[in-house]
Amino acid sequence: MNRWMSILAVVLVAASAVARFSHISPIWQFFISAVAIVPLAAIMGQATESIAAHAGPRLGGLLSATFGNAVELIIGIFALRQGLSTLVKASITGSIIGNLLFVLGLSFFVGGIRHPIQYFNIRAARSNASMLMLGVGIAFVVPSIFTQMPLRNPYTLSFGVAAVSLIIYLLGLLFSLFTHREVFAYIEDEASEEEEVKYKLWTAVVLLFSATILVSIESDWLVENVKSIAAGLGWSEVFIGVVVVAVIGNAAEHASAVWMAWKNRMDLSLEIAVGSTLQVAMFIAPVLFFLGLIIGNPFQLSFSWPELVSMTAAVLLVVVLMVDGESNWLEGAMAVGAYLVLAVGFYTLPSL
Amino acid sequence: MNRWMSILAVVLVAASAVARFSHISPIWQFFISAVAIVPLAAIMGQATESIAAHAGPRLGGLLSATFGNAVELIIGIFALRQGLSTLVKASITGSIIGNLLFVLGLSFFVGGIRHPIQYFNIRAARSNASMLMLGVGIAFVVPSIFTQMPLRNPYTLSFGVAAVSLIIYLLGLLFSLFTHREVFAYIEDEASEEEEVKYKLWTAVVLLFSATILVSIESDWLVENVKSIAAGLGWSEVFIGVVVVAVIGNAAEHASAVWMAWKNRMDLSLEIAVGSTLQVAMFIAPVLFFLGLIIGNPFQLSFSWPELVSMTAAVLLVVVLMVDGESNWLEGAMAVGAYLVLAVGFYTLPSL
Amino acid sequence: MNRWMSILAVVLVAASAVARFSHISPIWQFFISAVAIVPLAAIMGQATESIAAHAGPRLGGLLSATFGNAVELIIGIFALRQGLSTLVKASITGSIIGNLLFVLGLSFFVGGIRHPIQYFNIRAARSNASMLMLGVGIAFVVPSIFTQMPLRNPYTLSFGVAAVSLIIYLLGLLFSLFTHREVFAYIEDEASEEEEVKYKLWTAVVLLFSATILVSIESDWLVENVKSIAAGLGWSEVFIGVVVVAVIGNAAEHASAVWMAWKNRMDLSLEIAVGSTLQVAMFIAPVLFFLGLIIGNPFQLSFSWPELVSMTAAVLLVVVLMVDGESNWLEGAMAVGAYLVLAVGFYTLPSL
Repeated sequence: MNRWMSILAVVLVAASAVARFSHISPIWQFFISAVAIVPLAAIMGQATESIAAHAGPRLGGLLSATFGNAVELIIGIFALRQGLSTLVKASITGSIIGNLLFVLGLSFFVGGIRHPIQYFNIRAARSNASMLMLGVGIAFVVPSIFTQMPLRNPYTLSFGVAAVSLIIYLLGLLFSLFTHREVFAYIEDEASEEEEVKYKLWTAVVLLFSATILVSIESDWLVENVKSIAAGLGWSEVFIGVVVVAVIGNAAEHASAVWMAWKNRMDLSLEIAVGSTLQVAMFIAPVLFFLGLIIGNPFQLSFSWPELVSMTAAVLLVVVLMVDGESNWLEGAMAVGAYLVLAVGFYTLPSL
Repeated sequence: MNRWMSILAVVLVAASAVARFSHISPIWQFFISAVAIVPLAAIMGQATESIAAHAGPRLGGLLSATFGNAVELIIGIFALRQGLSTLVKASITGSIIGNLLFVLGLSFFVGGIRHPIQYFNIRAARSNASMLMLGVGIAFVVPSIFTQMPLRNPYTLSFGVAAVSLIIYLLGLLFSLFTHREVFAYIEDEASEEEEVKYKLWTAVVLLFSATILVSIESDWLVENVKSIAAGLGWSEVFIGVVVVAVIGNAAEHASAVWMAWKNRMDLSLEIAVGSTLQVAMFIAPVLFFLGLIIGNPFQLSFSWPELVSMTAAVLLVVVLMVDGESNWLEGAMAVGAYLVLAVGFYTLPSL
Repeated sequence: MNRWMSILAVVLVAASAVARFSHISPIWQFFISAVAIVPLAAIMGQATESIAAHAGPRLGGLLSATFGNAVELIIGIFALRQGLSTLVKASITGSIIGNLLFVLGLSFFVGGIRHPIQYFNIRAARSNASMLMLGVGIAFVVPSIFTQMPLRNPYTLSFGVAAVSLIIYLLGLLFSLFTHREVFAYIEDEASEEEEVKYKLWTAVVLLFSATILVSIESDWLVENVKSIAAGLGWSEVFIGVVVVAVIGNAAEHASAVWMAWKNRMDLSLEIAVGSTLQVAMFIAPVLFFLGLIIGNPFQLSFSWPELVSMTAAVLLVVVLMVDGESNWLEGAMAVGAYLVLAVGFYTLPSL
């Protein structure tokens, strides 16, 4: 499978280069870049996992927790450089509702078809639920509401929020990898059963390095074409960020979360879906905020009402679904249904 | 008791016909029609239950789940025909906060006076809690917020929401009546102990048919007088919908939920209060939306801020009250207190 | 320790009197009064506890539940008399988020450093969670949202809310001290182990009486200088209320909640932090509303968006942290992090 993934990636990257330099319609350029990112992201994910496996559970956990959503980070950086902070925030929103509602929902649904009731570690679930309340329900809501007043310095609050989120995220790693590792041991066991070290260490490093460069190039091309797409298809920048950009960076991860649920390894499935959400909210978003300040394209960590309501509603629904430590197919259907409602909502927003 | 109920219904229907054709004050006409609907709704409820009992548990469950709130549906249709979509949405709001806070609260309170702690099926409660989060917390909140932006097509989002709600509601029936019936078996057992088949099948069908026709006539008269009432008493259309209309369609159900709680049959009590809420939110509301499209009086599934906040707050409070699988009189007092706060709130709204 | 506390109080009160009558800068006057209130509040707390211990558990519980936050009440009355209803509401907000996030968070954190997982009575926690949802999530949110419409009488709704909150608060005392005392017996046991009757009854009464008078004087001076502070330091009245005024009335309590957590007496720790929150929201706030009506400086129980969002977010986070009956240091860090985010938010608000 890995071999085919690499071949697919090379073919798609070549196709997107041809598309770009033959100046075909920007819409086609956009979609070929988007599709090319999917297998590259999968390769980056596998390479990261392999390096993490070589590094042992603690250092490996740290590696996954910081590089696991590198593609979102790269796309975000290119979008920032072009001053597209609306797109950055929309893709953060999309990543969060996509992971929480679509990926988790599909996992619960697919797993629930085969297993009437599925169980997962209730302590890890509750810890994640609290983190979601803080990292989304407070860290994103507070600046969005407060900045509707005329603040004294527009970036102070976002700075404070980004710093607090990042620190609590790192404390969360300290908690799950060091001080309370036994609570999460269940997940580690499942993970180690799943894991076959896919690549040797050096192969993995080389693969990660090359895939990262290719993803950067494709991200650059993708972001350049966003405005043409918005104009050409009448989609809003927010819809593109929430639905399109958010899907491509996560497609491979999505597939494996659902696959784990099918095999009744719910702790791993949740770790992918909810862990990814927390990483985007409390690591990628703050890092992008600080990078924005550094490169001179600062933006506030405040979201539009539709984004804010979507993320908050998603968090509250998932908290209620998760805190009992059980899932079934109906809970999965509810989360996917909620995702559809939100996707239609973003589709109907005006393109401005 | 049934005999007296029928006599009462006939007397009140006759009285309301006399009131109407002798052209007395519209305020009296309104109140006599409102009162006449109460025993008719009770008869419809008993007839539906009898038919359901004859039909066996699965088909019977489906029947109750679709015809259980027929009165709300009928009033809604007549209100829609007159273009009173504000009234339709207000009575949906009223049904939801009335069932969740007043009926459930009174049940917890009355049951809790006799039994220090009452227990109910925690899995059914959690499933209902998640459904409330989706059916109210997301399905009503998202269109209300998104439509504050200038949408491309005002009805697309409401259409999507109505379709998703309806499908998830039907999947919920599939879940509770077929795939996970054993989770809800507890409720069925209690119900079958309670149930005496009250009417023979054909008597029940005839009663249901006649009561439905009479309810339709009374609803027509009731709705016609809403505007006069609003002008005459200075009440807002929203207050009439939230408090008056919502109470009359549910009075009989309310009484039986409280009666079940007194007898410590909490699963039945919750099934009536929360099941009714879900039926209004995820079945009646979408059906009314589609009917509105068909009869050419379309309306959006978006609510005013006071309605939205009331429903969301009610759902969140009840989720916290329910998820532990226990209740006591103080929890009941809290829910009733919350209902009073909201009722005073709607009373103080301007009549426009 | 008590002796030193008394000496400290006398010295600070003397210092603040000197500061006032030597007309030094209002900023210094403000801060010396603020600091002087801290030991006075501690003495009032100890005296109240001593009287409560003499009065037996039931009457004692009532005493603590009504006089436990007397300092907030006194400061509130002086602020009301000067028509500073913004400051009154800001200090209610500050008391709520301070107790829920900072005190509870620090307790969880400090206790969690010593004990990997700490347990507390899950029934008491859930009862408190529901009360928070009603007393803050509904009682404060509903008037704030409804009053954005042009209401028929601006004070009717606040009156209804204040009455309902107060009644439910008293019912809550009936519940925990009389009808369901055994649920909370755990707390009482821990408390009686902690308690040494610190003062004789008459000493306590005299101390309470004198400290109350001194606190009243200092509060008067403090409130008089708020406007100068706002102008001088560029802080908003809301920031002063939320952060400064809220801290000084609670400092002693804060210390003892954290101390209890360190000794693994989590039920007492929660009782202080969450009990205090409920007392401010459902007792002090309604009483101040009624006093405002009586003294002719009425105010509505409606809050600004930042205040509302802060309190609601705090309640929802704490509900999720509490309902599992367990805590650990990471949960504490989350709550403290949330407090920091809110404090920075209020700091950045314009001083108007």
